[in-house]
Amino acid sequence: MPNPAGPDLSALLETLQRLLGPPGFLTGADTVAYSQDWRRLYTGITPAVLRPADTAQLAEVVRLCNEAGAKLIPQGGNTGMVGAAAPAADGSELVLSLARLNRIRDLDAADMTLTLEAGVTLQAAQQAAAEAGCLLPLSIGSEGTAQIGGVLSTNAGGNNTVRYGNARDLVLGLEVVLADGQIWNGLRRLRKDNTGYCLRQLFVGAEGTLGVITAAVLKLVPRPRETEVAFCAVASPEAALALFGRFQSRDPAAIQAFEYMGRAGMELVLKHIPGAVLPLAEPAAHYVLIELATPREQAGLRGLLEKVLEPALEEGLVTDAAIAESEGQRRAIWKLREEHSEAQKREGASVKNDVSVPVSSVPALIAQASEACRALIPGIRVVAFGHLGDGNIHFNLEQPVEMDGAAFLARDHEMMDTVNKVVRSLGGSFSAEHGVGRLKPYMMPEWRGGAELDIMQRIKLALDPNGIMSPGRVLPQDRAARTGYPL
Amino acid sequence: MPNPAGPDLSALLETLQRLLGPPGFLTGADTVAYSQDWRRLYTGITPAVLRPADTAQLAEVVRLCNEAGAKLIPQGGNTGMVGAAAPAADGSELVLSLARLNRIRDLDAADMTLTLEAGVTLQAAQQAAAEAGCLLPLSIGSEGTAQIGGVLSTNAGGNNTVRYGNARDLVLGLEVVLADGQIWNGLRRLRKDNTGYCLRQLFVGAEGTLGVITAAVLKLVPRPRETEVAFCAVASPEAALALFGRFQSRDPAAIQAFEYMGRAGMELVLKHIPGAVLPLAEPAAHYVLIELATPREQAGLRGLLEKVLEPALEEGLVTDAAIAESEGQRRAIWKLREEHSEAQKREGASVKNDVSVPVSSVPALIAQASEACRALIPGIRVVAFGHLGDGNIHFNLEQPVEMDGAAFLARDHEMMDTVNKVVRSLGGSFSAEHGVGRLKPYMMPEWRGGAELDIMQRIKLALDPNGIMSPGRVLPQDRAARTGYPL
Repeated sequence: MPNPAGPDLSALLETLQRLLGPPGFLTGADTVAYSQDWRRLYTGITPAVLRPADTAQLAEVVRLCNEAGAKLIPQGGNTGMVGAAAPAADGSELVLSLARLNRIRDLDAADMTLTLEAGVTLQAAQQAAAEAGCLLPLSIGSEGTAQIGGVLSTNAGGNNTVRYGNARDLVLGLEVVLADGQIWNGLRRLRKDNTGYCLRQLFVGAEGTLGVITAAVLKLVPRPRETEVAFCAVASPEAALALFGRFQSRDPAAIQAFEYMGRAGMELVLKHIPGAVLPLAEPAAHYVLIELATPREQAGLRGLLEKVLEPALEEGLVTDAAIAESEGQRRAIWKLREEHSEAQKREGASVKNDVSVPVSSVPALIAQASEACRALIPGIRVVAFGHLGDGNIHFNLEQPVEMDGAAFLARDHEMMDTVNKVVRSLGGSFSAEHGVGRLKPYMMPEWRGGAELDIMQRIKLALDPNGIMSPGRVLPQDRAARTGYPL
Repeated sequence: MPNPAGPDLSALLETLQRLLGPPGFLTGADTVAYSQDWRRLYTGITPAVLRPADTAQLAEVVRLCNEAGAKLIPQGGNTGMVGAAAPAADGSELVLSLARLNRIRDLDAADMTLTLEAGVTLQAAQQAAAEAGCLLPLSIGSEGTAQIGGVLSTNAGGNNTVRYGNARDLVLGLEVVLADGQIWNGLRRLRKDNTGYCLRQLFVGAEGTLGVITAAVLKLVPRPRETEVAFCAVASPEAALALFGRFQSRDPAAIQAFEYMGRAGMELVLKHIPGAVLPLAEPAAHYVLIELATPREQAGLRGLLEKVLEPALEEGLVTDAAIAESEGQRRAIWKLREEHSEAQKREGASVKNDVSVPVSSVPALIAQASEACRALIPGIRVVAFGHLGDGNIHFNLEQPVEMDGAAFLARDHEMMDTVNKVVRSLGGSFSAEHGVGRLKPYMMPEWRGGAELDIMQRIKLALDPNGIMSPGRVLPQDRAARTGYPL
């Protein structure tokens, strides 16, 4: 197999094939499904997909690859948004699939902890928790396919972050195979443990560049007994923020989701998505979706909703509101939010910006970035929506109606730069949920450069001195030139 | 000034004296208060206490010390439990006081964030939050003196961890001066930010060994509107755990504290603490203190308490219960818990074990460790109490009534080893809240050795190659011998 970019791997591949056997060693046509990210941003070639059966076998694979200088790309469900899990086009990277490490090792309902392997899908983990009367409070669109290892390696977010935090906030313990093949068993189920550096948070969100997460201990919470969903037209993003503040001051633990949607995105959903219906008398410029939930019995969430919404309606913060009366109505309201991406795709060409700012700056972000984008491309449609409650807005841009889609997309970097300039001025982030992957390392020196990137690169070099783990992901490749820090 | 253990520092000290001026450079008798930890475990000598006025000046101090190879011990309120902040006895370590970095930089009540410098006391930070109608949900006994930098560097815990987590769970951003004098400004106020490694969690809990935390962004929460406190006699530690589970399944967000206390400790409190009164008809073998709190209006916490306690009383899980009817009664109940350390001190010699296990293993810990200690020293009094809700029990041991105190204390390591053997068999930690400091690095190879300690030591070497930051704290000194990892 050709490998122009690195050492001759043929001896290594023979050894790995013997070690892993047929179910653990795929080549040729069997590797195609593993060689492209699901957004189809990157299509690569890999000499082999390695599918070890357990942690010990995986550790041996990594040890052998490290000795041979072979590059490894850990891959879970391959649902990432920034291409981290796709192998390079030059055939220099081996794919390390976690799919066979798919056992649930333990569930302790008294501890409220779930110990499981990296290849378990998020949905299977949620189901295991539900069967024990608990909730694994992490939900993302790809949960049927996404695997726990990938969910943790990318620090996934989702709709419930406002209540439960990101994936990293649910992690009590990890098992990790290091770049030299050592196994770190840090599968502790402790709520308090001050015995040295907090290593688990280093591997969570590292996108496979520091080691391979092979198992984890996750926190569970009690399953909600009561849920209420409301859909409101609000006067402005400022009104949406004020409304969030009122719920937060009264019952922060009940806010399961607090989502913002603007007029343009809602119009596309109503136009393109079969069955989508606005549950209000007439369209508005700004909407919020509020989901309240709690394990309390007779919690009176409906009363709380009404108590907050009624004065807000009188004051004009809220201009219209609908409260779901059934599970069907709840799903219909959530559909308006969840179909935003699909509706955009059907309308034409669009550019995505997964950005965050401090919660109090969301109105400024929407106003300033909208104005700047309209100045850049007259007629551009701003499709801003997302997690107002945690400051994470998907600030997407849809082509002007009359414009050619390709001509619009050709200006994607101009648009991203325009949005990011506003985000940066507000102390925000260019990647709230999706990570850096292969798509955005070039942005790291400007946004996280100086001491911050220097620390990251020192850690990378300390834990993966041969640079075999997911090279080129997260950190820019040319270290010395980018940071001035000598290799 | 003599410095037998390191390089001649006289030129450096002259430079530092010029840089810092009289309020920033203390020598001789002025250093005494900085040279001993508050438990009086370690008494040292330091050539100078450095008190820079701001982050820029502190960074220049660190840069100069790094160049000269001078060792630095960051010190906040000096209330640590494991001696990390006291300088060595050989005069080789300079104390770096954070006390003058004591500004609150920003409080945003919409974001619910507080940005402040390391030298602000925890109590001053709590007051700033309260003035804005918010709660900084971290409370420890030493909060009037402890400073934010130390609180974060030791990942402090306290009574409210069951609800809000440890100090690290409240940190959104950090400003850190690295060992080479670089300033990392990571004071972001973002709830979601997936742009590279999560560095803040590396410095939180590192006890000053990787850099100096100079400022932080902390999360705030809404101030509670309703609070209820109950004190119960329970049938056993198992009954206490079951009771915790019942509250947790109904309203986990309202559990502000869930504390266990055993008979022996309560007897000492009632004997030695003036005004301490048991609010129950008669003494019992096991007690719990439950505090519920919530920002909800008309939350009905009293109803919840009764709804859970009444059936528990009928079933015999709870054998007696008192609910506080006033702020005075609440304080009286909390006093029974808070005076445990003082009561032990007045009774005689005692040995402290700050251990944690999975929450579901707390009953096993109490039973097994009690039996083992009684076998070791007949007549020993087990004073077990603490944070049942997060698995952190202060498993303290009081001398037998007839035994000589010094003879008892001479066997402290035997007793600690006895307790720790049980803790280890239950997957627990030898330091739940207090950290490692200078007192416990010798335990690291056995408990956190192999790959875990190897990673820690690689990170230490990567971020502090000259070893100037808090040497000998957290990590055992003799690296090669302890882990087999070559220097």
